[in-house]
Amino acid sequence: MDSTTIIAMASIITAGLTTAIGSMMPAVGEGRAVSTALDSIAQQPDAAPTITRTLFVGLAMIESTAIYCFVLSMILIFANPFWNYFLG
Amino acid sequence: MDSTTIIAMASIITAGLTTAIGSMMPAVGEGRAVSTALDSIAQQPDAAPTITRTLFVGLAMIESTAIYCFVLSMILIFANPFWNYFLG
Amino acid sequence: MDSTTIIAMASIITAGLTTAIGSMMPAVGEGRAVSTALDSIAQQPDAAPTITRTLFVGLAMIESTAIYCFVLSMILIFANPFWNYFLG
Amino acid sequence: MDSTTIIAMASIITAGLTTAIGSMMPAVGEGRAVSTALDSIAQQPDAAPTITRTLFVGLAMIESTAIYCFVLSMILIFANPFWNYFLG
Amino acid sequence: MDSTTIIAMASIITAGLTTAIGSMMPAVGEGRAVSTALDSIAQQPDAAPTITRTLFVGLAMIESTAIYCFVLSMILIFANPFWNYFLG
Amino acid sequence: MDSTTIIAMASIITAGLTTAIGSMMPAVGEGRAVSTALDSIAQQPDAAPTITRTLFVGLAMIESTAIYCFVLSMILIFANPFWNYFLG
Amino acid sequence: MDSTTIIAMASIITAGLTTAIGSMMPAVGEGRAVSTALDSIAQQPDAAPTITRTLFVGLAMIESTAIYCFVLSMILIFANPFWNYFLG
Amino acid sequence: MDSTTIIAMASIITAGLTTAIGSMMPAVGEGRAVSTALDSIAQQPDAAPTITRTLFVGLAMIESTAIYCFVLSMILIFANPFWNYFLG
Amino acid sequence: MDSTTIIAMASIITAGLTTAIGSMMPAVGEGRAVSTALDSIAQQPDAAPTITRTLFVGLAMIESTAIYCFVLSMILIFANPFWNYFLG
Amino acid sequence: MDSTTIIAMASIITAGLTTAIGSMMPAVGEGRAVSTALDSIAQQPDAAPTITRTLFVGLAMIESTAIYCFVLSMILIFANPFWNYFLG
Amino acid sequence: MDSTTIIAMASIITAGLTTAIGSMMPAVGEGRAVSTALDSIAQQPDAAPTITRTLFVGLAMIESTAIYCFVLSMILIFANPFWNYFLG
Amino acid sequence: MDSTTIIAMASIITAGLTTAIGSMMPAVGEGRAVSTALDSIAQQPDAAPTITRTLFVGLAMIESTAIYCFVLSMILIFANPFWNYFLG
Amino acid sequence: MDSTTIIAMASIITAGLTTAIGSMMPAVGEGRAVSTALDSIAQQPDAAPTITRTLFVGLAMIESTAIYCFVLSMILIFANPFWNYFLG
Amino acid sequence: MDSTTIIAMASIITAGLTTAIGSMMPAVGEGRAVSTALDSIAQQPDAAPTITRTLFVGLAMIESTAIYCFVLSMILIFANPFWNYFLG
Repeated sequence: MDSTTIIAMASIITAGLTTAIGSMMPAVGEGRAVSTALDSIAQQPDAAPTITRTLFVGLAMIESTAIYCFVLSMILIFANPFWNYFLG
Repeated sequence: MDSTTIIAMASIITAGLTTAIGSMMPAVGEGRAVSTALDSIAQQPDAAPTITRTLFVGLAMIESTAIYCFVLSMILIFANPFWNYFLG
Repeated sequence: MDSTTIIAMASIITAGLTTAIGSMMPAVGEGRAVSTALDSIAQQPDAAPTITRTLFVGLAMIESTAIYCFVLSMILIFANPFWNYFLG
Repeated sequence: MDSTTIIAMASIITAGLTTAIGSMMPAVGEGRAVSTALDSIAQQPDAAPTITRTLFVGLAMIESTAIYCFVLSMILIFANPFWNYFLG
Repeated sequence: MDSTTIIAMASIITAGLTTAIGSMMPAVGEGRAVSTALDSIAQQPDAAPTITRTLFVGLAMIESTAIYCFVLSMILIFANPFWNYFLG
Repeated sequence: MDSTTIIAMASIITAGLTTAIGSMMPAVGEGRAVSTALDSIAQQPDAAPTITRTLFVGLAMIESTAIYCFVLSMILIFANPFWNYFLG
Repeated sequence: MDSTTIIAMASIITAGLTTAIGSMMPAVGEGRAVSTALDSIAQQPDAAPTITRTLFVGLAMIESTAIYCFVLSMILIFANPFWNYFLG
Repeated sequence: MDSTTIIAMASIITAGLTTAIGSMMPAVGEGRAVSTALDSIAQQPDAAPTITRTLFVGLAMIESTAIYCFVLSMILIFANPFWNYFLG
Repeated sequence: MDSTTIIAMASIITAGLTTAIGSMMPAVGEGRAVSTALDSIAQQPDAAPTITRTLFVGLAMIESTAIYCFVLSMILIFANPFWNYFLG
Repeated sequence: MDSTTIIAMASIITAGLTTAIGSMMPAVGEGRAVSTALDSIAQQPDAAPTITRTLFVGLAMIESTAIYCFVLSMILIFANPFWNYFLG
Repeated sequence: MDSTTIIAMASIITAGLTTAIGSMMPAVGEGRAVSTALDSIAQQPDAAPTITRTLFVGLAMIESTAIYCFVLSMILIFANPFWNYFLG
Repeated sequence: MDSTTIIAMASIITAGLTTAIGSMMPAVGEGRAVSTALDSIAQQPDAAPTITRTLFVGLAMIESTAIYCFVLSMILIFANPFWNYFLG
Repeated sequence: MDSTTIIAMASIITAGLTTAIGSMMPAVGEGRAVSTALDSIAQQPDAAPTITRTLFVGLAMIESTAIYCFVLSMILIFANPFWNYFLG
Repeated sequence: MDSTTIIAMASIITAGLTTAIGSMMPAVGEGRAVSTALDSIAQQPDAAPTITRTLFVGLAMIESTAIYCFVLSMILIFANPFWNYFLG
């Protein structure tokens, strides 16, 4: 195996696993947050606007960790500096 | 094994595992969110529209992490830049 | 082993594991959603139509992640672009 | 090992593991759904028809993920396109 | 090792593991369903017929996933198409 | 290693592991069912006959999955078709 | 390594692991059943004879899965048909 | 390595692991049973004799699974039929 | 494989896994914090400003551990001193 | 490696792991039993003698499984029949 | 592979894994602390200053374990004495 | 590697792992016992002497399993009969 | 690989993993302690000084186990006696 | 690799892992004990001296298991009898 093959293979496998592993727990965290939001709205319908607003900020924070992983995978596939070096 | 075989094999295995692992936890998170939504509707039927609307936004957020994985798998199978390089 | 054998073997194993792993958690999530739905109907029989409707939408969302995996497996078995390349 | 042996071996092992892994969690999910159904009937005997009907729809949805895996195993054993190619 | 040995060995190991893994969770699910049924009968003895009937339908559904695995194992041992090919 | 040694070794190991793994969860499920039965009898001594009868049916269902595994192990040790082929 | 050594080694290791793994969960299940029995007797001393009788039947059922494993191990050590074949 | 070395090594390792693994869960089960017994005596001091008697029967049943493993280990070390064969 | 290939491969794989593993638990922790915040607002709407402010400080602390991992990955990809040494 | 080295190495490693693994769960079980004993004494100080006596019998039973492992380790180190054979 | 390559590779992989593993549990611990802080403020708004102050001290203590790992990674990448030795 | 090196290496690794693994669960069990003791003292300050005395006996029992492991490690390092044999 | 390379590599990897693994559980333990402290202050604001003082002593004890690991890592990196021997 | 290198490498890796693994659970146990102590003080401030004294004795017992591991690591690094033998 020459260098380009090894770098390509490592990039493909790493990109996939990074997004896959990185998507697991944000989904759990968001599920928990949404779940409590629904419970809270049912319990205190008057506070729905405050709850919804806080929920969206929180979801954005949690989603951000999944997005770090997705961004890293995109960098590895489409803007990989090691790949560019070996192609050069 | 030549380079195209290695890249094809890595792409197939990574695409499958990425979608498989990435689908696990969103299903758990959505199950939790739907479950609380049903509980909340039973508890406070009047708040059903607000609950349903918040649920759908939340499901979309959770589903998004599964979709990142599915998109990445599709890229690896149908628009893989490393594969295109070795074919070129 | 020549290239077609390797690609075929990788496709078979990946297709199987993707569907198997991808089916695990949706079943748990759906079990949880159905379970709460039954509980909610018993608690508030009047809200049964709303609960049932929300349940079906939720089940469809959860099932979708299992379907991503099944679709990917079908692509790997019956419409695999890498396999078609090596056959060509 | 020649190609037909490898493909046959991979198909046998994958078919078995796919059905085995894919049967685990649906059984848990169905156990949970049935369990809550029995609890709900005991709590609210009047709602038994609605509960039973919703239970059966839910069990069908959960069972469907186990069936995806069983179908895939059957395809791998009795209608495997890769096997047919190597026999041809 | 010649082909028949490999296929026989793979079939034996896969048949055993498939039944073993596939029997684990149905036993848990059935244990849970039976457990709730007993609890419900103690709580509401009048609903015993309905509970028992629903329990049996549920047990049949849960047992079905264990049976998929057992059937697959039997096919691999006594009606294995790959084995028949290599004997032919 | 010749073929009979390999088949014998695979049969011994698979037979043992199948019974061992297959016995784990039925024991848990039965423990749970018996446990709830005792609790229910203490809570509602009048319903003891119904509870005991339902318990025995349930235990039989749960035990059945352990018996699938034990039967399969016995087939592998005393009526193994692959072993008979290689002896022939 | 000749065939008798391999078969002996596989039998020793499998016999040990089968009994070890097979003893784990019955102990947990019996612990749970005994535990609830004690709790139930303390709660309803009048039902002690019924509880004790049901407990013993349940313990026998749970113990049976451990005994399957122990029997299988004894067969592998003292009445192993594969070992007898290679000695013959 | 000659045959006696292999058999001796396999016997030592299997004997150790069998006792070690087989001792884990009985300790948990007994801990649970003893724990509930103490709780029950504190709750209902009059039922202490019945509780203690049932506890001892239960502990004997749970301990039996640990003893199966210890007996098997002793057989492997001091009365191993395979070892005797190779010494013969 | 020459040194640059090895360093590049190690950097790609480590960068991906670091971000992936490091993103898991912050998402869980943030999900928990957001979830309690929503619950607390529903319970005590008057304390919403204090709760929201404390939540944001807490989320920043939790997010910081995910950011350590992301920063380290960026260093490994874009400012790796070992890579620069081998390029020099 | 000659036979004595292999047997010595296997004995050392097995003796250590057996005691280590075998000490884990008895500690958990005893912790649970002691914990409930303290709780029960605080709840019902008059029953302290009965509780203490039952606790000591229970601790002896639980400790016995740890002692099986320790005894086995001592046999492997100081009275190992296989080691004595190879020394002979 | 020469020494500098090995040391560089080990440093990269260790630095990444150390930060990744070391960031997991602090995030969980901080999530728990923040979560209880929010709950406590909602329950006792008057004690908010004391709670907030104790929370910040606690978060600093928990964060310190993540920082140990980050510092160690930085040392391994930018001030590695082994690397300096082999460069010298 | 000659025999002394192998025995020394096996002794070092086993001694370390035995103490490490053997220290895990006693710490958990003692934590639980101490925790309940504190709870019981707060609940029933008058029973403090009885609780403290029972706690110390219990801690000694739990600590004993950790000490078995530590003693075994010391034997392996400072009084290892296998090591003495190979030195002889 | 010569000796210095091996020792350097082992020291780097061990130092990283030791700090990483050793930082996990202290963070969980401290999170739990801080969390209960906040809860206790909210419940009993008058006891805040006693609670805070006990919390700090407890945090110091828990942190000490993380510090053992960090100190050991520092010894391995900056004052490693084995490394000094091979350099000498 | 000569003997000194092997012994040094084994000592470094074992020392690190022993301290790391051995520090995990004491931290959890101490966290639990401290946590209950704080809860008990808040509940019964008058018993604070007794609680604090019992807590410190308990923490010392729990810490002792972590110290066994740390002591063993120090022995392996600074007073290793095997290392001294090979140096001699």
